Amino acid sequence: MVKKNKILLIHGPNLNLLGRREPGIYGRTTLAEINRQVRKLSKKLKVALTIVQSNYEGKIVDLITASKGKFCGILINPAAYTHTSVAIRDAVIACGIPVVEVHLSNIYCREEFRRHSLISPVARGTVMGFGPQSYLLGLEALLSLT
Amino acid sequence: MVKKNKILLIHGPNLNLLGRREPGIYGRTTLAEINRQVRKLSKKLKVALTIVQSNYEGKIVDLITASKGKFCGILINPAAYTHTSVAIRDAVIACGIPVVEVHLSNIYCREEFRRHSLISPVARGTVMGFGPQSYLLGLEALLSLT
Amino acid sequence: MVKKNKILLIHGPNLNLLGRREPGIYGRTTLAEINRQVRKLSKKLKVALTIVQSNYEGKIVDLITASKGKFCGILINPAAYTHTSVAIRDAVIACGIPVVEVHLSNIYCREEFRRHSLISPVARGTVMGFGPQSYLLGLEALLSLT
Amino acid sequence: MVKKNKILLIHGPNLNLLGRREPGIYGRTTLAEINRQVRKLSKKLKVALTIVQSNYEGKIVDLITASKGKFCGILINPAAYTHTSVAIRDAVIACGIPVVEVHLSNIYCREEFRRHSLISPVARGTVMGFGPQSYLLGLEALLSLT
Amino acid sequence: MVKKNKILLIHGPNLNLLGRREPGIYGRTTLAEINRQVRKLSKKLKVALTIVQSNYEGKIVDLITASKGKFCGILINPAAYTHTSVAIRDAVIACGIPVVEVHLSNIYCREEFRRHSLISPVARGTVMGFGPQSYLLGLEALLSLT
Amino acid sequence: MVKKNKILLIHGPNLNLLGRREPGIYGRTTLAEINRQVRKLSKKLKVALTIVQSNYEGKIVDLITASKGKFCGILINPAAYTHTSVAIRDAVIACGIPVVEVHLSNIYCREEFRRHSLISPVARGTVMGFGPQSYLLGLEALLSLT
Amino acid sequence: MVKKNKILLIHGPNLNLLGRREPGIYGRTTLAEINRQVRKLSKKLKVALTIVQSNYEGKIVDLITASKGKFCGILINPAAYTHTSVAIRDAVIACGIPVVEVHLSNIYCREEFRRHSLISPVARGTVMGFGPQSYLLGLEALLSLT
Amino acid sequence: MVKKNKILLIHGPNLNLLGRREPGIYGRTTLAEINRQVRKLSKKLKVALTIVQSNYEGKIVDLITASKGKFCGILINPAAYTHTSVAIRDAVIACGIPVVEVHLSNIYCREEFRRHSLISPVARGTVMGFGPQSYLLGLEALLSLT
Amino acid sequence: MVKKNKILLIHGPNLNLLGRREPGIYGRTTLAEINRQVRKLSKKLKVALTIVQSNYEGKIVDLITASKGKFCGILINPAAYTHTSVAIRDAVIACGIPVVEVHLSNIYCREEFRRHSLISPVARGTVMGFGPQSYLLGLEALLSLT
Amino acid sequence: MVKKNKILLIHGPNLNLLGRREPGIYGRTTLAEINRQVRKLSKKLKVALTIVQSNYEGKIVDLITASKGKFCGILINPAAYTHTSVAIRDAVIACGIPVVEVHLSNIYCREEFRRHSLISPVARGTVMGFGPQSYLLGLEALLSLT
Amino acid sequence: MVKKNKILLIHGPNLNLLGRREPGIYGRTTLAEINRQVRKLSKKLKVALTIVQSNYEGKIVDLITASKGKFCGILINPAAYTHTSVAIRDAVIACGIPVVEVHLSNIYCREEFRRHSLISPVARGTVMGFGPQSYLLGLEALLSLT
Amino acid sequence: MVKKNKILLIHGPNLNLLGRREPGIYGRTTLAEINRQVRKLSKKLKVALTIVQSNYEGKIVDLITASKGKFCGILINPAAYTHTSVAIRDAVIACGIPVVEVHLSNIYCREEFRRHSLISPVARGTVMGFGPQSYLLGLEALLSLT
Repeated sequence: MVKKNKILLIHGPNLNLLGRREPGIYGRTTLAEINRQVRKLSKKLKVALTIVQSNYEGKIVDLITASKGKFCGILINPAAYTHTSVAIRDAVIACGIPVVEVHLSNIYCREEFRRHSLISPVARGTVMGFGPQSYLLGLEALLSLT
Repeated sequence: MVKKNKILLIHGPNLNLLGRREPGIYGRTTLAEINRQVRKLSKKLKVALTIVQSNYEGKIVDLITASKGKFCGILINPAAYTHTSVAIRDAVIACGIPVVEVHLSNIYCREEFRRHSLISPVARGTVMGFGPQSYLLGLEALLSLT
Repeated sequence: MVKKNKILLIHGPNLNLLGRREPGIYGRTTLAEINRQVRKLSKKLKVALTIVQSNYEGKIVDLITASKGKFCGILINPAAYTHTSVAIRDAVIACGIPVVEVHLSNIYCREEFRRHSLISPVARGTVMGFGPQSYLLGLEALLSLT
Repeated sequence: MVKKNKILLIHGPNLNLLGRREPGIYGRTTLAEINRQVRKLSKKLKVALTIVQSNYEGKIVDLITASKGKFCGILINPAAYTHTSVAIRDAVIACGIPVVEVHLSNIYCREEFRRHSLISPVARGTVMGFGPQSYLLGLEALLSLT
Repeated sequence: MVKKNKILLIHGPNLNLLGRREPGIYGRTTLAEINRQVRKLSKKLKVALTIVQSNYEGKIVDLITASKGKFCGILINPAAYTHTSVAIRDAVIACGIPVVEVHLSNIYCREEFRRHSLISPVARGTVMGFGPQSYLLGLEALLSLT
Repeated sequence: MVKKNKILLIHGPNLNLLGRREPGIYGRTTLAEINRQVRKLSKKLKVALTIVQSNYEGKIVDLITASKGKFCGILINPAAYTHTSVAIRDAVIACGIPVVEVHLSNIYCREEFRRHSLISPVARGTVMGFGPQSYLLGLEALLSLT
Repeated sequence: MVKKNKILLIHGPNLNLLGRREPGIYGRTTLAEINRQVRKLSKKLKVALTIVQSNYEGKIVDLITASKGKFCGILINPAAYTHTSVAIRDAVIACGIPVVEVHLSNIYCREEFRRHSLISPVARGTVMGFGPQSYLLGLEALLSLT
Repeated sequence: MVKKNKILLIHGPNLNLLGRREPGIYGRTTLAEINRQVRKLSKKLKVALTIVQSNYEGKIVDLITASKGKFCGILINPAAYTHTSVAIRDAVIACGIPVVEVHLSNIYCREEFRRHSLISPVARGTVMGFGPQSYLLGLEALLSLT
Repeated sequence: MVKKNKILLIHGPNLNLLGRREPGIYGRTTLAEINRQVRKLSKKLKVALTIVQSNYEGKIVDLITASKGKFCGILINPAAYTHTSVAIRDAVIACGIPVVEVHLSNIYCREEFRRHSLISPVARGTVMGFGPQSYLLGLEALLSLT
Repeated sequence: MVKKNKILLIHGPNLNLLGRREPGIYGRTTLAEINRQVRKLSKKLKVALTIVQSNYEGKIVDLITASKGKFCGILINPAAYTHTSVAIRDAVIACGIPVVEVHLSNIYCREEFRRHSLISPVARGTVMGFGPQSYLLGLEALLSLT
Repeated sequence: MVKKNKILLIHGPNLNLLGRREPGIYGRTTLAEINRQVRKLSKKLKVALTIVQSNYEGKIVDLITASKGKFCGILINPAAYTHTSVAIRDAVIACGIPVVEVHLSNIYCREEFRRHSLISPVARGTVMGFGPQSYLLGLEALLSLT
Repeated sequence: MVKKNKILLIHGPNLNLLGRREPGIYGRTTLAEINRQVRKLSKKLKVALTIVQSNYEGKIVDLITASKGKFCGILINPAAYTHTSVAIRDAVIACGIPVVEVHLSNIYCREEFRRHSLISPVARGTVMGFGPQSYLLGLEALLSLT
């Protein structure tokens, strides 16, 4: 049986460029800094956190479909795949463990094609618009569900 | 000057029926119970919380437009007005203090007409889908912004 | 327990102007005259009828959300709010007693934006297009459901 | 000249299967039972009722276009043809006698393609959502118009 | 081999009511009168004319699919089926002889759902808006094609 | 009989915040200043002006439906309700006195959902885009109609 | 009780013209030839096959609604009615025996209005694009379901 | 007073290239040849015909607005302006004499943006799809209207 | 330098027919009469007015693009080009002087295709629905902007 | 030259989870079991079958673009990529060998965004809705095409 | 026969204002300067260049329809007519010589109504987004086609 | 610092099949031949060119996000991902160096779903429709930007 405190954090495409990419929208915090903050909170909450960043839709599907039995919950920022990936959506449905969606920015005040999330309807909940804080609140939320 | 710890919590239409209204979607927790939980967290965070529930769009606009100078932030669950009220949206823009939007359920996995929020694009951020927990996370998020 | 014969009749916005407002569409009968006819039928059917007209969406939501335990059914002509009020729709779902929707005119042969009822999908049934007679048939229908 | 009490009742396609077809939506009452109830009310109201069921759009058009001078009103449940038949719509306009549309279920809370009636805008009125009761109320409504 | 001067004229649904049906749109000429005029012109042009009116989509499909080898051309006023019948459209494609579409009124200045002809794209040409004259011009046009 | 020079000026939701609300769009003039200018012109034109501001849709409907016999014309800036209120639209149709719509900004160069006015088609005319000057021109226009 | 091997094969409108109608899309095989092939396979599979072709929507509804108790499954090529017939769709739902939909061509690579099947969502499955082979595979599929 | 036999024929943009422009759609007949055929028929019908071709929308509006009192009818092939010119549409309404629209090809079986005529709803009738013959039939139709 | 009081008034296509064209919509006042009224007001306001009417989109673009340095403002009724001309819109943006749009009728209560103005979003403001009075108010508005 | 009996079977994303993923829709059969059944049929039909499952769109494109000269046909269940992958669609067109599309469920009776296949228009045919049986019928169909 | 090196360069409406018109989008280079650069490159490439700028759609159609036999290719920046002119599109198809479309800005990152080119589908190719450089590359491209 | 002459050329999915894939649309030139031509021009322009082809969206995102500091510009033919990849779009925005988009064919004259580029709005410019020449012109354009 999986221990309650194992969580998988998935960063979607282009998040490796955080801090450099459109700081007006995404802020100046780097991915390393966000990971540091999430790890710090994990430690405090006694969560064993695994972090992966990938630009491949297929890789993210692999990770999610393999998560059952290894993790008790997934925290995901699907980034660009939020709007285009039916495959990740299917994986979220199929994996059988709670998934929480987070976004740094508020996707509903951006370009038209970003105002639709294929992931929201299958996630347990969503936290967005608070910058790096979205990850921290999302982690708390995820733990309250598992 | 307003003290940092004064927060206004607005519950939109029909939320007075919580616990009785479609428990499959909104859960069995009553509004009184949610208010108790939010008040408890407020005390812990040293926040002075004012709570109002109203079924009137005009009343909610009044509350928001009068909030500047009295509160340092607003936590709002606009309920049905999420999808129809340009007036509340305009009030949120005009009030000049941070507003965080919360929802008990994930509005993006419900009927078509509910999958659009007029409030999200003008709120600082959104927390949804975690039941009463959405309010608690939303309060934390709001404090981190003020 | 509520007695079976207590019915709430709600007239939506602008119906106070009936008889004067676009008689080509709504006819020349006044609201007072309609109320007289409905009251007469109520007496015959031994129904205790409460009648309210309001131009406030919030007031109508208040009435519906407070109806449980006081009335055994609601007869409503939501008028303009038929097409715009998600709040009244939510109240109808939440109130837990049968609601019948009536319209004087046939809303489906009017302007495009009136050919959609947010209330129909949550009402038990609809009677429309028969002028004041719609109310009388609606009352009969409502009684057969309670 | 046609006597006031001659009414034509038309049942559209598949209604011959009532009671067996999707009872969750249409109920368990058979067409024979509905006809019995409508005939009983007709007798009481001194109406001479002619009842036809047909799966053919062309047959229904034939019936309606031939009704003038034979009947003083038509009660119709166009069933599936509600959503697709411009020909029946044209016949209703052309026949020159009052037509009342009835539906067992509330068509506006079903699949998207059923939420549009080509017949409503040309019928005098509509009664829907009350099961077999829709026919009885529709008959009363029709008589009040003729 | 078919003789060049055999033409089939098909009148679609409700045209049997011409002269009585919405005279503001369709004029006061009856179908009998139109047939008389078309027969007169046929005689002059040495055309052997067969005329059929039917309210059945299936019957019209039967007629068209059986026309090859019997007629050298079809003149059709598909009436309501103009807008809804893929089956008649397919029959027109399949029959292999020239088909000319006529309309009494100008369908493109009527209700939205009438401003689309499924038949036009597969007919050789269309004449509309000239009342009974549309049939006479359509017959001339058809003969110039055969 | 109503004297020609009695005019009702209605300010819709959030206009109480003028001068503070998005000055880039609405300018820095306060509502008090606009009222002062309109009152000054009223005096010059010998108009008795009544001014109301309300955030309640129902209140604005009340005002309009009660205006007949009290006022000879209405000048209204429906603000956010411009885009959402079928009830105010119905009130404007029903009230039976001329209504002129004004807007400070040009609503057709703003967000998509603001580029549609439910009020314009039922108002006698519209003046928009000239800031406070829109009210002054609207008052002149209204007087030329009454 | 119905014996498992009684199957009804319905050919929709215009299929009587197969081999002559747009051979580029439908191929050169005639309906007689297809029937011969399906009969041959039926014999091999010990299926008692009844074949009907009709151009009438109403006739096809009649056949399907009367099938229960007579057949254990229906193989249908609804042809043009695929895209327009809510009545056949309702009959398929109501008949209570498995229905398999077949098409000679791939309807999703044709004109826009053909890329939507009203029958697919209520059929047990669909085989399309393989010419006459679609019927043979469809028959096998149907038998595996009954 | 204008004599009945004065007709204005307007050829819209690019028709000067007929015979050379997409012969698969428009045929190989040149504009000169069409004009010769129309002139020949005019002579036979004792019509005084004026022919103009212009690529300028404004010129065509000039011609139509100046036609009253000079011509008793207009035959127009608006070509590309069929789909884009509200100005020509307005001119047709304003000119006060009958206008007949003709097209060489059937515009409803071409690209999507060509399947809409702004002129049809304001013309008295339309003849299309018969190549140069469309002009001859259109002239006959126009004469029957004047 | 341009003197403040030089104004260009442009009348778009078909306005030369005013008084004769659809008087139910545009009134019976001729263009000459409107010009007389505007000239009278100009004299009073000490404005040097240049008036041009053209049916050519290109001519109107020429006028606007040449206006800088010659006029201090433009009053335009773009008529039919309101709905179709991106070129005039671009000219308005490019000319660099204030432009005010006027309409005799309220374009938002007419046909669907007229309920959209390409000019409004780039004009400084709009006055519409007051008949010839729209021009007078528009001139006042323009002067207040220059 | 490729031998006729070499077939490539591609399973798209998430199919590795079959049997565990939404059994209400996809059934309880695992991918291993489906592969066993398809292999068994292949053996019987003397087909050399290569089976690949991948969650990567790019990998599936690689497989298809490399298939020419190695396989004589492809059987593919594109799963989620059915609805989003133009790249797989282009690969199917480019590969030059017959491709048959299969689905376990009937995609046309699921969520809106799943009711569209980018692959169907370029596949030779489609079999869907029969669970694992879809693969077996698809293989037979594919062989009949190669 | 036309000599290969004769090219027609057409500048559409408002381009005469370049350098002054929205420099943020179109840059500060004037049309004269662009013409100088294109002429310089033409000289180098031994091309005889004719340059025309017009604000008239009709004039541009005239130029294109008269180009055959005079020029071997056309370079066009249709400016505002890109989005509205079916007439220019038809002229491009009809003229029978290669046409290359250029734009200073990238039209697909501007307002919605500019993100559609009626000219692109009939041009041989398009170069856009490189400012004046678009013309130079377009000229090179055009020469490679002629 | 990156030297000005380092350019990355990315070929998107299926371009490895060029010459074999739909030659009617893409021509018969192979990718190797295109690469040879681009390399030849690069040598002439003293550009150090790196060429990659990939069918993986994730790989292309990797390449672009890693390009900063290694290349001074990117030339990309996103092929099928043009229409579906928000991830590549985000990478183009984030990478911080100029990107030029090229297409062999004119995407705006193909299937509906191909007439939209997610990349164009974020690229510096686009060259399309000139076959392999598009790459050569694109390279020139890119150099003029760096």
